[in-house]
Amino acid sequence: MSIEQIVNDLGKNAKNAARSIAILSNEEKNSALKILSENILKNSEKILDANKKDIDNAKKNSLSSPLINRLTLSATSIEGISKSIEDIIKLPDPVGKVLEKWTQPNGLEFQKIAVPIGVIGVIYESRPNVTVDATCIAMKAGNAVILRGGSDSFYSSNELVKIINNSFLEAKLPNHITQMIPTVDREAVNYLLKMNKFIDIIIPRGGKNLIKKINKESSIPVIKHLDGICHVFVDQDANIEVAKKVLFNSKMRRPEICGATETLLIDGNIKNYASELLEPLLNVNCEIRGDEYIQKLNNNFIGASEEDWSTEYLDKILSVKIVDGVEGAIKHINKYSSGHTEAIITENESTFKKFYKNIDSAIILKNASTQFADGGEFGFGAEIGISTDKLHVRGPVGAAHLTSFKYIVHGNGHERP
Amino acid sequence: MSIEQIVNDLGKNAKNAARSIAILSNEEKNSALKILSENILKNSEKILDANKKDIDNAKKNSLSSPLINRLTLSATSIEGISKSIEDIIKLPDPVGKVLEKWTQPNGLEFQKIAVPIGVIGVIYESRPNVTVDATCIAMKAGNAVILRGGSDSFYSSNELVKIINNSFLEAKLPNHITQMIPTVDREAVNYLLKMNKFIDIIIPRGGKNLIKKINKESSIPVIKHLDGICHVFVDQDANIEVAKKVLFNSKMRRPEICGATETLLIDGNIKNYASELLEPLLNVNCEIRGDEYIQKLNNNFIGASEEDWSTEYLDKILSVKIVDGVEGAIKHINKYSSGHTEAIITENESTFKKFYKNIDSAIILKNASTQFADGGEFGFGAEIGISTDKLHVRGPVGAAHLTSFKYIVHGNGHERP
Repeated sequence: MSIEQIVNDLGKNAKNAARSIAILSNEEKNSALKILSENILKNSEKILDANKKDIDNAKKNSLSSPLINRLTLSATSIEGISKSIEDIIKLPDPVGKVLEKWTQPNGLEFQKIAVPIGVIGVIYESRPNVTVDATCIAMKAGNAVILRGGSDSFYSSNELVKIINNSFLEAKLPNHITQMIPTVDREAVNYLLKMNKFIDIIIPRGGKNLIKKINKESSIPVIKHLDGICHVFVDQDANIEVAKKVLFNSKMRRPEICGATETLLIDGNIKNYASELLEPLLNVNCEIRGDEYIQKLNNNFIGASEEDWSTEYLDKILSVKIVDGVEGAIKHINKYSSGHTEAIITENESTFKKFYKNIDSAIILKNASTQFADGGEFGFGAEIGISTDKLHVRGPVGAAHLTSFKYIVHGNGHERP
Repeated sequence: MSIEQIVNDLGKNAKNAARSIAILSNEEKNSALKILSENILKNSEKILDANKKDIDNAKKNSLSSPLINRLTLSATSIEGISKSIEDIIKLPDPVGKVLEKWTQPNGLEFQKIAVPIGVIGVIYESRPNVTVDATCIAMKAGNAVILRGGSDSFYSSNELVKIINNSFLEAKLPNHITQMIPTVDREAVNYLLKMNKFIDIIIPRGGKNLIKKINKESSIPVIKHLDGICHVFVDQDANIEVAKKVLFNSKMRRPEICGATETLLIDGNIKNYASELLEPLLNVNCEIRGDEYIQKLNNNFIGASEEDWSTEYLDKILSVKIVDGVEGAIKHINKYSSGHTEAIITENESTFKKFYKNIDSAIILKNASTQFADGGEFGFGAEIGISTDKLHVRGPVGAAHLTSFKYIVHGNGHERP
């Protein structure tokens, strides 16, 4: 069978299955997830064996150590995967939720209710846990998934898919909820991205280049995350102690995640607090790249280039700039931000309002760390990613966001005049 | 200047203007709409003069009479345009609406609020009123529009754009809320559809072929409407009087609109009521194309071919089939429907539930005409179209649907653990 035929069959299977998956009850879905969560623990050793094959190959192919890290599973991370399924079980059923209801003057009663999207294509790189996370989040919302894992995690992902399918079979769910493209040939992705007849949405997980490429080539709508160039702005009405701890957490809790802050903006009226704000970061050897004023504060500070303002370091580096009040901060952020997450430190509610009204980013926080940009912290349960797009879903993407809606209308013989 | 340069400049202008338009207050938007509504009435004659040029050209170019009808404005239709603006004024401001709010156990307070999408490209054919409708609906939701009207309505649309821009200038709104592509060269559309740097969404209005072509070529997400193959299913628990009048209205009120019913399905258990159901339609010479059973009922009935079940007649023609209960109806509809609107006639609420849960269409009505598939009838005010897609917006698209959202988070020094 040609690769095109293989991918096409997966698409057809998924589409055919979608209607049966869409009408599963919350109990049916949860009991299957429960079986899966247990089976993952029970099959820990098999998963680790498969994972070892991937790691051995990765070493043979001289993959970088961060890539090998992303690929590597452990007894603890497998427990984490199982635990995250338990969290998804606890979520309310996104399907059938009444989103709005109203009655028109003519007596027609309207309900807008959430329904599954249908078939979701997930393309990811080396993290094998995406196999399970994506399946469970999508399935909780009544969707089928077609997975395309990276070649690096081939054995781990396939072992996980086997466990998923056996568990869903045990739970008597319909077939074809989860299908993995059985080849690592790049051609398969090309076919996948053109299969708008069967697939409703594509979610890519991985590096920026992968995502850009997929977005360019896909004829199916893509929910994507590009950069996370996040800002903290310390306003003249900030509580400096709050600013210090929130800034430190925003940058240093985990500098490598997309919600980590990359740029600090300080209101010119309180620029004399700059050294105090930066001191905790210096103590942990965070590199500071500043504008002219900042640079002069410390011999270790480096000058920031124009490029720095639009760089996502994902590392212990912070660019720092003095700006002309909240207007200056808004101007800078709207120019350089990736529209992901921004925080303002202020005790002034009307300054906060100006800040959030004028800035076009998915998440705007007051006196809280940018690292709260996370589906779990939002109460969405596990997330399948964070969208920097503005259509359909923006910010953290949880199970509830993998739905569409329909309108249910009750009449009693209504004719339209 | 090249066409590419012209289109690019419009895009850049719109994108630059979008932030200022996004933060307009409801009062500012409404007072500008009020001025526009009045100026359209005041300039009635100028509009009719421009429209006459288009009509003369159309006749010269031997356009079909339905096309000329679509193009033609009258004092009455201009009053209608003005009136529809008044309706948009009455809508609540879609921007800033709190869509959800909740507090996490750690005390972080979340709000999900509606924000404008940004820049909307509208591509339409001969109806000049789209110029005003699209502008006003998009602007009410804080968006800029780039319009590309059809060559047939060139003079009318340009006259309307002139009035729009003068009115918005009079109201001291930002520039570039509405821009019309100044050339009818087809090349301009090609550039427009690739300008994802500046345009957030494309809305095509017109024939199915235009829409398919745009959807295929656009690198920008498209909100689109394809077919409206709508069904009425008369269940065994139907009130036959209700069925008769709802069916008649669904087909005959205006057979040419997308919400008109094309196929009637009758529960086999009540097939002996078929003649009674169809009688009012026969009285107005509606053509009936039926399955074997139906065909035999009347000498004037024609046999329906396989193609009939997936044909949008938009005319006084109805295809009719006897099905095996609600399951049979569900099966037929999921196979042939375009996912637009379906109605069931039944007094049995649990049959209705089975019907709407299993059918994947945007609108499902009980005991009400499919012709209620309309933004105005839903209470959305004017609509810019009806989406048969499932992402972002489904069903009637009003001002409130031309928004995205962002999250506003209140903390008091929250660090993420």
